Amino acid sequence: MKIFMHSVEHLIETALSEDIGPGDITTDNLVGPDLVGEGEIVAKESFVIAGLDVAKQVFAYFDPAVRYRPFFEDGDTIETGQVLLTIGGKLRALLLGERTALNFLQRLSGIATNVRSYMDCLGKEKVRLVDTRKTIPGWRVLEKYAVRVGGAYNHRMGLFDGVMIKDNHIAACGGIKKAIERIKDRVSHLLKIEVEVSDLSGVKEALDAGADVIMLDNMTIEQIQEATALIGGKAIVEVSGGVTKKDLSRLAATGVDVISAGALTHSARSVDMSMRIKTPG
Amino acid sequence: MKIFMHSVEHLIETALSEDIGPGDITTDNLVGPDLVGEGEIVAKESFVIAGLDVAKQVFAYFDPAVRYRPFFEDGDTIETGQVLLTIGGKLRALLLGERTALNFLQRLSGIATNVRSYMDCLGKEKVRLVDTRKTIPGWRVLEKYAVRVGGAYNHRMGLFDGVMIKDNHIAACGGIKKAIERIKDRVSHLLKIEVEVSDLSGVKEALDAGADVIMLDNMTIEQIQEATALIGGKAIVEVSGGVTKKDLSRLAATGVDVISAGALTHSARSVDMSMRIKTPG
Amino acid sequence: MKIFMHSVEHLIETALSEDIGPGDITTDNLVGPDLVGEGEIVAKESFVIAGLDVAKQVFAYFDPAVRYRPFFEDGDTIETGQVLLTIGGKLRALLLGERTALNFLQRLSGIATNVRSYMDCLGKEKVRLVDTRKTIPGWRVLEKYAVRVGGAYNHRMGLFDGVMIKDNHIAACGGIKKAIERIKDRVSHLLKIEVEVSDLSGVKEALDAGADVIMLDNMTIEQIQEATALIGGKAIVEVSGGVTKKDLSRLAATGVDVISAGALTHSARSVDMSMRIKTPG
Amino acid sequence: MKIFMHSVEHLIETALSEDIGPGDITTDNLVGPDLVGEGEIVAKESFVIAGLDVAKQVFAYFDPAVRYRPFFEDGDTIETGQVLLTIGGKLRALLLGERTALNFLQRLSGIATNVRSYMDCLGKEKVRLVDTRKTIPGWRVLEKYAVRVGGAYNHRMGLFDGVMIKDNHIAACGGIKKAIERIKDRVSHLLKIEVEVSDLSGVKEALDAGADVIMLDNMTIEQIQEATALIGGKAIVEVSGGVTKKDLSRLAATGVDVISAGALTHSARSVDMSMRIKTPG
Amino acid sequence: MKIFMHSVEHLIETALSEDIGPGDITTDNLVGPDLVGEGEIVAKESFVIAGLDVAKQVFAYFDPAVRYRPFFEDGDTIETGQVLLTIGGKLRALLLGERTALNFLQRLSGIATNVRSYMDCLGKEKVRLVDTRKTIPGWRVLEKYAVRVGGAYNHRMGLFDGVMIKDNHIAACGGIKKAIERIKDRVSHLLKIEVEVSDLSGVKEALDAGADVIMLDNMTIEQIQEATALIGGKAIVEVSGGVTKKDLSRLAATGVDVISAGALTHSARSVDMSMRIKTPG
Amino acid sequence: MKIFMHSVEHLIETALSEDIGPGDITTDNLVGPDLVGEGEIVAKESFVIAGLDVAKQVFAYFDPAVRYRPFFEDGDTIETGQVLLTIGGKLRALLLGERTALNFLQRLSGIATNVRSYMDCLGKEKVRLVDTRKTIPGWRVLEKYAVRVGGAYNHRMGLFDGVMIKDNHIAACGGIKKAIERIKDRVSHLLKIEVEVSDLSGVKEALDAGADVIMLDNMTIEQIQEATALIGGKAIVEVSGGVTKKDLSRLAATGVDVISAGALTHSARSVDMSMRIKTPG
Repeated sequence: MKIFMHSVEHLIETALSEDIGPGDITTDNLVGPDLVGEGEIVAKESFVIAGLDVAKQVFAYFDPAVRYRPFFEDGDTIETGQVLLTIGGKLRALLLGERTALNFLQRLSGIATNVRSYMDCLGKEKVRLVDTRKTIPGWRVLEKYAVRVGGAYNHRMGLFDGVMIKDNHIAACGGIKKAIERIKDRVSHLLKIEVEVSDLSGVKEALDAGADVIMLDNMTIEQIQEATALIGGKAIVEVSGGVTKKDLSRLAATGVDVISAGALTHSARSVDMSMRIKTPG
Repeated sequence: MKIFMHSVEHLIETALSEDIGPGDITTDNLVGPDLVGEGEIVAKESFVIAGLDVAKQVFAYFDPAVRYRPFFEDGDTIETGQVLLTIGGKLRALLLGERTALNFLQRLSGIATNVRSYMDCLGKEKVRLVDTRKTIPGWRVLEKYAVRVGGAYNHRMGLFDGVMIKDNHIAACGGIKKAIERIKDRVSHLLKIEVEVSDLSGVKEALDAGADVIMLDNMTIEQIQEATALIGGKAIVEVSGGVTKKDLSRLAATGVDVISAGALTHSARSVDMSMRIKTPG
Repeated sequence: MKIFMHSVEHLIETALSEDIGPGDITTDNLVGPDLVGEGEIVAKESFVIAGLDVAKQVFAYFDPAVRYRPFFEDGDTIETGQVLLTIGGKLRALLLGERTALNFLQRLSGIATNVRSYMDCLGKEKVRLVDTRKTIPGWRVLEKYAVRVGGAYNHRMGLFDGVMIKDNHIAACGGIKKAIERIKDRVSHLLKIEVEVSDLSGVKEALDAGADVIMLDNMTIEQIQEATALIGGKAIVEVSGGVTKKDLSRLAATGVDVISAGALTHSARSVDMSMRIKTPG
Repeated sequence: MKIFMHSVEHLIETALSEDIGPGDITTDNLVGPDLVGEGEIVAKESFVIAGLDVAKQVFAYFDPAVRYRPFFEDGDTIETGQVLLTIGGKLRALLLGERTALNFLQRLSGIATNVRSYMDCLGKEKVRLVDTRKTIPGWRVLEKYAVRVGGAYNHRMGLFDGVMIKDNHIAACGGIKKAIERIKDRVSHLLKIEVEVSDLSGVKEALDAGADVIMLDNMTIEQIQEATALIGGKAIVEVSGGVTKKDLSRLAATGVDVISAGALTHSARSVDMSMRIKTPG
Repeated sequence: MKIFMHSVEHLIETALSEDIGPGDITTDNLVGPDLVGEGEIVAKESFVIAGLDVAKQVFAYFDPAVRYRPFFEDGDTIETGQVLLTIGGKLRALLLGERTALNFLQRLSGIATNVRSYMDCLGKEKVRLVDTRKTIPGWRVLEKYAVRVGGAYNHRMGLFDGVMIKDNHIAACGGIKKAIERIKDRVSHLLKIEVEVSDLSGVKEALDAGADVIMLDNMTIEQIQEATALIGGKAIVEVSGGVTKKDLSRLAATGVDVISAGALTHSARSVDMSMRIKTPG
Repeated sequence: MKIFMHSVEHLIETALSEDIGPGDITTDNLVGPDLVGEGEIVAKESFVIAGLDVAKQVFAYFDPAVRYRPFFEDGDTIETGQVLLTIGGKLRALLLGERTALNFLQRLSGIATNVRSYMDCLGKEKVRLVDTRKTIPGWRVLEKYAVRVGGAYNHRMGLFDGVMIKDNHIAACGGIKKAIERIKDRVSHLLKIEVEVSDLSGVKEALDAGADVIMLDNMTIEQIQEATALIGGKAIVEVSGGVTKKDLSRLAATGVDVISAGALTHSARSVDMSMRIKTPG
């Protein structure tokens, strides 16, 4: 149970409902309820697999006794033509679940694969690559899971499990110092305080006010180097802003601690796989 | 109300819930409930906009009196740097809705933009380009809307509003002819019957059995030409299977009626835009 | 799984909730949780049975291990006094589910029985008798299922799986021709276009504009004959409007393809059956 | 707010969802969002109206600013051809709500009309005619409301707001006396205890044990008379079991206090009415 | 199934959702999915246990195969240090369910313990001690269950299963007599009518008007005695208003039938217990 | 919007549903829908008020136009007899919402009052007093809000927004050091790592392994002093375990940073207030 399946079940039901609605009029009318079948999902390109438990849950929704046999684990690299898993059970369950199960697997594996390619660019650098809140609405938990499968890290899950002070918050409070003081006095002692700054004077102010994490937003490599030197280990340094794969090694070389990249999720495309179903006899 | 907003509201609530959970701990603690602000959403690349009503609904969730002023309509092309819309209201509402509204706009505009690029490749051909069921689970209605915004057409919405007979259905019934006869005798007289075939003998059988639409799955250009000639207008001809932008004109030239492409949705990436918020004074 | 049980489960839960609310105060206080019982449902008049799977689901809600043994299948004719099914399990489950299970069976069998009586009047005519959207709110899927059990056919399930152009749509578009052209350019190629007309000039216009199905609304037998002759097989002909059992043979004789009758569902009454429960010893 | 609208809203949403699903493909494509219209609902037979607030709520779901003007109140008798109400607002709201609003009005008015006909048979007798739990699953609150509109009374709403001891309860406890004693010691002092009996010895036992209400189930007129005499005002007497309109006066003449009839709800049919919509110009 | 578990399941899901949200970040990352454990819940003070079935349901949510072995039944008195139950299963299930299961047990046992102490003060008096509607919102069914476990009785569950006429109702109707007449003519014949009065003239009026139950609100002992004498067994007498433990015997001695005390629920505090979990090896 | 009202709305609906169910049979039958009233809520003891926005929402559910005028703000101290707020609107709305609104106010104010009394004991000590996860299931967000109103601080909201490593986690990982290393490599860089230890060797190990927060569980004052000295400011020190009001100053004097006390919430009782409603004329 690497993913908290209970929070994902609701999305699975929504997905099945939008696909099947009042009924699969083709299958309900042409396939007898007692027919059984065997299916297999095959990779049509190379990718990092993610979402095997979700796909299982989709089929189990129609036939709790379904035999679901994955040959890999989330995070494994699959080559073109390899069979990911086999599945056996009621033919109706296979046909009704097929498209939805694939849609989940293709999107989640697409993200994991994209993230893996970022990690490969990063190489052995010690910097931590993290995601953002730029995820498909409704998919936050799943997409952040796929990011971990791909080898990167999660930033906060949402607005509730991490403090991030941005320019509007600072303006509303009358300065960085006041904002940090106030928030430190209000949130749980288990949370660090991150402040987003866009220039060196911001860095200094945040540092003086006791920020735990300083996010350098859209700065040049030179500014980042200067800021990192200035901070000198007294706070965690995060860089952010339109980060692409080719920026990674240069950014890592500046000595920052964390690189956050929305592209990990928002620029991923679905990978290609398909399901073949055979009926006995 | 081009989109059926009532079915979309549930997804908006899910999205806000996953992002905000028990509360935005930064904003709740630093921004007073009576502060107001003005925001604008700016394009950071060129794209086709889609989802303006959805974004409005997101902000209205927090402040029903929000002033939302789009300068474009869904389907318009936006250039880099253009302001899409302005929005005024409670500062908290702007901050809490910002990321979710952008996530919706970026994904939907990403699809519309992708679809538009396919339509541009197709040029003035009379063929109809349609989407598939390869959509993000939970997003079927929205993604199919964005496909229409981009200029292409929708295939069936799900398993409930169109008949599509595939190989497993045929095997379960004992042949194409039996399958078509049985389904014609069971579904509404408002629905056409589509049969998926993979070779010419399948085409002949489907045609003889009275299929309304024949889908040629993964055939070569030559096979498609032969099949189209064989069908001779007696059924709608659809081609499908790994269709990419560069295949479009060749496929269109074969004289088929419909080209379906999963890539319209599953290969779209989010487009880039951002929101700037100003507080008075 | 002739009915899509997953969409029906929600109605079952609503039904049990409205009947049991915070608890069955009589049974909870008088019947021990370990007592078991055996029940049987008996016909108190002759009818066509429908809804056996739904009733099973009701009891299974309280006791998943319930032994539910129907002696018939949906669509069978039951005679007065015959035992439809036996059921064994926790006595509490039998008592809590009894009324709700019967309420489902009585309504659904009532519709199937009503529909069967229409089919008997129709005799061997080739015309297709179909239902309408005049169903009990919340019961669309179930009532349309009971119509099929009774031997008739379904019209569209709702506003989403069939196009029906009525006078208000025509007025809004500026004429039948414009309406048909516009809708053909917007909806899926798997859907036929039906137009409702009330006189012969409407028939002509619809035919010229390429309607796939023409609905003759509230016309006289003479008008229907004339219209059918005019259409001459170039579109499917449907008649509608206050159709009663005694109209059926006359309407069928006009040569129309489809007769739609709201009375199939809205005029059905519940049939009579009851449950007897025995406790051992 | 004669009906508790909040508990009804959920059913309205279910009804709209099953009818509209992902969208009204005809109206969405043919009717502009800014068009307005005026509608009226007309009686096509004579009936007692019920459900005016529910129908209003249906339309308000799509257009909160809808002008809904009923000319009658629930309980009024409507004559064929009379206009029940007019409604003005967005044309789309009128078209999307039409069928669902009518389905509610037709069913509820059907029940009220049926009940009124029972009341007319009963004349000026002092006996109280009540409904049962034989209602359409999901419709308990609404159908019991319609019964009151028609002039009859409600029995308990469900298993939670009234005690009714039946043969299985008695068997499980080891006798009527034990059952009554036990239940009196367990339920709220605001509830009366009703016992269902099928012969005179049961009547005596129930009376001795202190039943507040005694239900005579399926007894003959003679048995009822004897039982009523025996009870002699020491408990409320209710008769039940296949009660039809023609039984009413004979049953009332026996001097019983309450007659319960499932037919009030389960044998009602929908009454006929229709909606005409006009668009300006 | 002493509690109607189906209505409680929703609260359990809400509780788990608010505690676990997108995931238990400590356990998910540190405890393997296949590890198993054994736990026991131990009393850290003496109390009356209530809620054993609810706690079981919490753990079963994560591991349906959990072995849950209570050594007591609801209503038993537990001494400090005693082990209430043992539980074995997936270690993750134990850790994720622990806090929520304890929170349910501690609150429900707290109420049962509080109620028991009231019952002990009451001794062998024949008066019935009942709860009120002063319960934690969302917990009505559970708290009323715990009251019964503690040995007291339930007043009405809510506004729907008992009539209670208060001063505002009387004022709105124009007098007690009119109010009682009207309500008797409108509600089910299974319900008794309770009227709340605050002085002797109110008592007389209520008695004359045929109230079944008269609630003496905030009267002195002397007034209560006088009222009880006046009523003379012709109605059930209930006293209410700031009842504390030390008032009980004096109130009971006045001869009233029912004493209602909000303090049974609203003044209960959680009792202390804890869970120890051991992992094998 | 100090509380995230959207997450609270669901609890309000549940509360109203459990209290009103299918309808308030007294008010619906005795109070006309157009009657209006004026109410006021009065303190019957001294307390710290909390939950004013929640109570408003309850009434607004029935009458969106209700005039709700609080004379205090959450956190204010109210004296016996003071009027907290007045409310005017539909009489039915006042009567239907009264009990639920009071139940919310009484519980939340009870917690705030309890917390305030702890804060008063603590005096001017710099230590931070925090709550725990020992809250009423379903009430986490609300109870933690009331804790803040009372002047104390929140620990983590749930298992998702803070890391707390306990003995079972340590055992599952093979030691504190391994557990901390693993979790640091897996969770967001915005979260601090807390470890629960029960003796000095645990303190040392946690400190060496880089714990950000060390929780001393159930230690004596002497052990706490020793541990605090040992830690020497290199980690935040939290004490926990059966903390009562009289322990506070002694614990604070040890120099720890944080004291967590489940009693803040689980031992609070509801405070006393009531509502008086007047109808005009």
